Amino acid sequence: MAPNVVEMQDWPEPVAGPNDVLVEIAAVGVCGSDVHYFRHGRIGNLVCDRPIVLGHEAAGTVVATGAEVTQLKPGDRVTLEPQRPCGHCAQCWSGAYNLCPDVVFMATPPYHGAFARRVVNPADFTFAIPHSLSFEEAALIEPLAVGLWATERLAMKPGSSVLIIGAGPIGLLAGQAAAARGATRIVLSDINPARIGLVGRFPRFEAHDAAADPLYETIAEVDNVIECSGAPNAVTRALPRIRRRGGLALVGINPTGASSVDFWPAMERELSIHGVFRYAGVYPRAIELAASGLVDLQSVITNRFSLEETAAALTNASEDMSSIKSVVLP
Amino acid sequence: MAPNVVEMQDWPEPVAGPNDVLVEIAAVGVCGSDVHYFRHGRIGNLVCDRPIVLGHEAAGTVVATGAEVTQLKPGDRVTLEPQRPCGHCAQCWSGAYNLCPDVVFMATPPYHGAFARRVVNPADFTFAIPHSLSFEEAALIEPLAVGLWATERLAMKPGSSVLIIGAGPIGLLAGQAAAARGATRIVLSDINPARIGLVGRFPRFEAHDAAADPLYETIAEVDNVIECSGAPNAVTRALPRIRRRGGLALVGINPTGASSVDFWPAMERELSIHGVFRYAGVYPRAIELAASGLVDLQSVITNRFSLEETAAALTNASEDMSSIKSVVLP
Amino acid sequence: MAPNVVEMQDWPEPVAGPNDVLVEIAAVGVCGSDVHYFRHGRIGNLVCDRPIVLGHEAAGTVVATGAEVTQLKPGDRVTLEPQRPCGHCAQCWSGAYNLCPDVVFMATPPYHGAFARRVVNPADFTFAIPHSLSFEEAALIEPLAVGLWATERLAMKPGSSVLIIGAGPIGLLAGQAAAARGATRIVLSDINPARIGLVGRFPRFEAHDAAADPLYETIAEVDNVIECSGAPNAVTRALPRIRRRGGLALVGINPTGASSVDFWPAMERELSIHGVFRYAGVYPRAIELAASGLVDLQSVITNRFSLEETAAALTNASEDMSSIKSVVLP
Amino acid sequence: MAPNVVEMQDWPEPVAGPNDVLVEIAAVGVCGSDVHYFRHGRIGNLVCDRPIVLGHEAAGTVVATGAEVTQLKPGDRVTLEPQRPCGHCAQCWSGAYNLCPDVVFMATPPYHGAFARRVVNPADFTFAIPHSLSFEEAALIEPLAVGLWATERLAMKPGSSVLIIGAGPIGLLAGQAAAARGATRIVLSDINPARIGLVGRFPRFEAHDAAADPLYETIAEVDNVIECSGAPNAVTRALPRIRRRGGLALVGINPTGASSVDFWPAMERELSIHGVFRYAGVYPRAIELAASGLVDLQSVITNRFSLEETAAALTNASEDMSSIKSVVLP
Repeated sequence: MAPNVVEMQDWPEPVAGPNDVLVEIAAVGVCGSDVHYFRHGRIGNLVCDRPIVLGHEAAGTVVATGAEVTQLKPGDRVTLEPQRPCGHCAQCWSGAYNLCPDVVFMATPPYHGAFARRVVNPADFTFAIPHSLSFEEAALIEPLAVGLWATERLAMKPGSSVLIIGAGPIGLLAGQAAAARGATRIVLSDINPARIGLVGRFPRFEAHDAAADPLYETIAEVDNVIECSGAPNAVTRALPRIRRRGGLALVGINPTGASSVDFWPAMERELSIHGVFRYAGVYPRAIELAASGLVDLQSVITNRFSLEETAAALTNASEDMSSIKSVVLP
Repeated sequence: MAPNVVEMQDWPEPVAGPNDVLVEIAAVGVCGSDVHYFRHGRIGNLVCDRPIVLGHEAAGTVVATGAEVTQLKPGDRVTLEPQRPCGHCAQCWSGAYNLCPDVVFMATPPYHGAFARRVVNPADFTFAIPHSLSFEEAALIEPLAVGLWATERLAMKPGSSVLIIGAGPIGLLAGQAAAARGATRIVLSDINPARIGLVGRFPRFEAHDAAADPLYETIAEVDNVIECSGAPNAVTRALPRIRRRGGLALVGINPTGASSVDFWPAMERELSIHGVFRYAGVYPRAIELAASGLVDLQSVITNRFSLEETAAALTNASEDMSSIKSVVLP
Repeated sequence: MAPNVVEMQDWPEPVAGPNDVLVEIAAVGVCGSDVHYFRHGRIGNLVCDRPIVLGHEAAGTVVATGAEVTQLKPGDRVTLEPQRPCGHCAQCWSGAYNLCPDVVFMATPPYHGAFARRVVNPADFTFAIPHSLSFEEAALIEPLAVGLWATERLAMKPGSSVLIIGAGPIGLLAGQAAAARGATRIVLSDINPARIGLVGRFPRFEAHDAAADPLYETIAEVDNVIECSGAPNAVTRALPRIRRRGGLALVGINPTGASSVDFWPAMERELSIHGVFRYAGVYPRAIELAASGLVDLQSVITNRFSLEETAAALTNASEDMSSIKSVVLP
Repeated sequence: MAPNVVEMQDWPEPVAGPNDVLVEIAAVGVCGSDVHYFRHGRIGNLVCDRPIVLGHEAAGTVVATGAEVTQLKPGDRVTLEPQRPCGHCAQCWSGAYNLCPDVVFMATPPYHGAFARRVVNPADFTFAIPHSLSFEEAALIEPLAVGLWATERLAMKPGSSVLIIGAGPIGLLAGQAAAARGATRIVLSDINPARIGLVGRFPRFEAHDAAADPLYETIAEVDNVIECSGAPNAVTRALPRIRRRGGLALVGINPTGASSVDFWPAMERELSIHGVFRYAGVYPRAIELAASGLVDLQSVITNRFSLEETAAALTNASEDMSSIKSVVLP
């Protein structure tokens, strides 16, 4: 199937293994990676060489459980952590299961995702949600987990400041995670006027126009930076704006590969630059933050589509910069 | 001068050294240690063998600065970190200046404190406050710093849970610090019905009656405990309620010295027990939390007194369990 | 079978599951816990209510592998990490698999151990050893792992000092782990003259006689303490000897349960007390330390027995204080 | 005075301030930065616009002490930590005094260094040495401190592996620091055959020829990298060789400023890149490592010069690649 083409297909009911659950999907968020695969058929060396079911931000209701599953039962409302690590390697046994070389991640070729009526997920990575969370909010625990994990890699402190480069869904949710852990200055930077305009709707966020101030010179020094844009110059431009012993988290993927970096500001200030790859071990606490109201997931949902409208959801997400997050509701 | 006696005296104007500031005091909080010295003339081996000026939770306005001071000027509204470390020992050079063996701490014999019109403080430990903070709030940055430091020693995570033993001012402010850094379950425990009744006025706090449930058996496991009561049995009773790899911070001083402790629950769960002594390096961020509204210092102030009423303030603080924090406004 | 009785039995060949290996045992160390079960039939609430195969410090040769095993093959010389965590709980997925509530640990009732010709072990917890390590040394990777893990819980720094209370095999191997990571002052304390006498055979160790100096007053302050004796008074006596911000690791089990502890020295110095329970994630590096010669496992082996002499090995280990570590060589 | 010119001058005796000591210099190491100033008159934006006394790796004997100094006395043999932080800023009070914006560092323009008979140093940064250390060894505590600090920034673990890029004095001493803290595989890489040839004289070091294998492809993955060469391509080439969750310490200064970096390997493996700037808080432990024999400073000293031969020492250090470390003995 070619890029830009979405087709509804009847598939056989998926079967849960002994440690799996079968989930009736109620909501799936549209992620930038979904849009990228939809438009280009690939992200870097990950190539869709055959049709793929996209979608990896999913929530729904358990309809069946494998023989070994005790912590969940049919009828449970759940959110899905969309990874299935091997469980046997050094990474898995050390808590770094997101770095498992054999991890199966939803909607990453060749594995299918959650734009579907029903999917199977490991029970260990399927989490019950309280009734205070709607399904569409529960679907967005996934991008919140990305943002929360970035703040954990940085060991961000209460009362500290952060510059977030890229005011898309990941940046906005990273900002909310930072706010939930007590950051008191949260600057969201983007080059897109529509995105900059959206920042104002979130309490305690400051907007920064990176088109007008590409070197971040109007921003007072910050304790940390979360780079979510993938812009080739972002890292080298941001480093001099970070306070001594501060940190920078790499979240956005630079589509051009290498970029020019001057490490001297990181050396003379003893900064630390941390790679971030998805997340590990944060779902239960991300759910707590959303359920307690410390993070407002509803605030980032701007568009809703039916499963039949998935193509429209993907198209809209790639074209309408004034939308933040679209959800598909099967 | 005997315990329970307070006397107003005319003293010569204190003189700021080259790295000091002279501050006109606007507000001073009454701390439990002030009350203890007032009533008993000593805390452990710290003995008031001559009259002492109490009070170490202070805010005011700079009226003069030493010759070397550049970061502050007369007229600046400030809060005082009431410690003067030596600046030359291994602790001072490693950031652990609160553990400096020669630290001078206000209102700890033989050093005088801040129930006074004017005091001298090191400029390095005197912090400007924004106009959004009143003086009486700024005075309470000190007990907030104690609570914040306890949460830092525990490296408390967003979305985690905490049991705080002792619902006095320190416990309530530790709870607010925990809330500000994203704790989503905050249980305040006390044996005093008046104190338990106060817990309900703080959003997101749960009250626990330790008189009715002395072993904390009705509390689901928590990630961390902050022990603020000094009750002899608190540690050994709390350890089994902590989740694996969780922590317990020792803040309250056990007046009886040794107590009976079974470490087995700490061993089989790999818990960590951390001593907490005052605080180090947290004032700027404590001010940020209060100024941003993440911590509400106003909510703990229940009584106000003039400087002439200091004896009444000390008496009230020791007798009226329905009051939380009294401030003296010179 | 009663305490103090050991019997050789013919058992059917154990069968490796799909992720297991079958190992022909070549050497098994005798641990204090083996001796305790042999003499008393229980340790705390862990009771041998039927006969048990003891032994959990084991090395040997792989003779068969389960269908899913790829990293090992018959003929591989290996050492066994004697735990089988469930692989599905929050502890297992966070790297704290030693705290898995369902962990199966060898020779801990009701699970059998390694005083046997052949045993089955999970492949994930079976590690190949280089030819520079003998089997009897490889068996002792297990107690070395306990000591190494204690030093990791303490984040012990190069050039630092440590007091190790209890100069038995665990204390001596904790001392070697400390030496391997750069500790420059390593004091081994015991009350038993035979044990104190053994300390001198290890380079860079200092001996301390706790019978003559029970309060450790002759020892200059240390950065860390590793408590391996379980003596009821050890913790409260050791705390005042630790430098500010230092730590104490709890390794030895106090057979009396609770003891009297004064936490004040831990509070005013901001010490941290860490529970230690077996180990997690240290086997590969423990093997590296032994293979490189940074740790000398040969130096602690004092007695060797055949499998038929297991009863004698257990008896000797409980009676002869001048022996350090006995190994059974099936 | 022009580059490449050294002149002996008679200066008045320097005067120790109240917290200083006056030290009779016995040995000074020649550092690459000394050579660079000698040859080029500048390093980056640090310009010698007037004559400067070079040398910052110094040891000697106290001959006078300031009025406030109690921990040292005339006759004490000492090594000098060559920095004088302001003692009043946020960095100084947090333990990050090496990042003090007003730090005075020896032999960094406009401040003079230690190629002199006598120098003044802050007593807080002057450390007594045991008799087991010679003066020339004690002088080399300074470059050892750089290497030790790099290993601390990386939190390098015992039994781990490290690739050190650049086999000059800093690289070799970083390797010794790594060895002292238990690294079991230590690979020293360089492009210069003379330097590669020197690696073999250090026990447990492996040599790697970066000219023959510029992408480090023949090196099995390592846990950490310490970049000491400043080679523009070193970082981007080394990142893919680091194990998941590993780290890279930036020590060498890239003379070209920016270089091309692909962060993707750091992202998908969650690596951390840490800036290193001199050191903080490591002198006492570096002395312990050298005094205990865990680090052999004698092994890197290849050339000795008198104070009158300082020009020859600087010339030799810049031309003779088979020498490692030269010391000037006034």
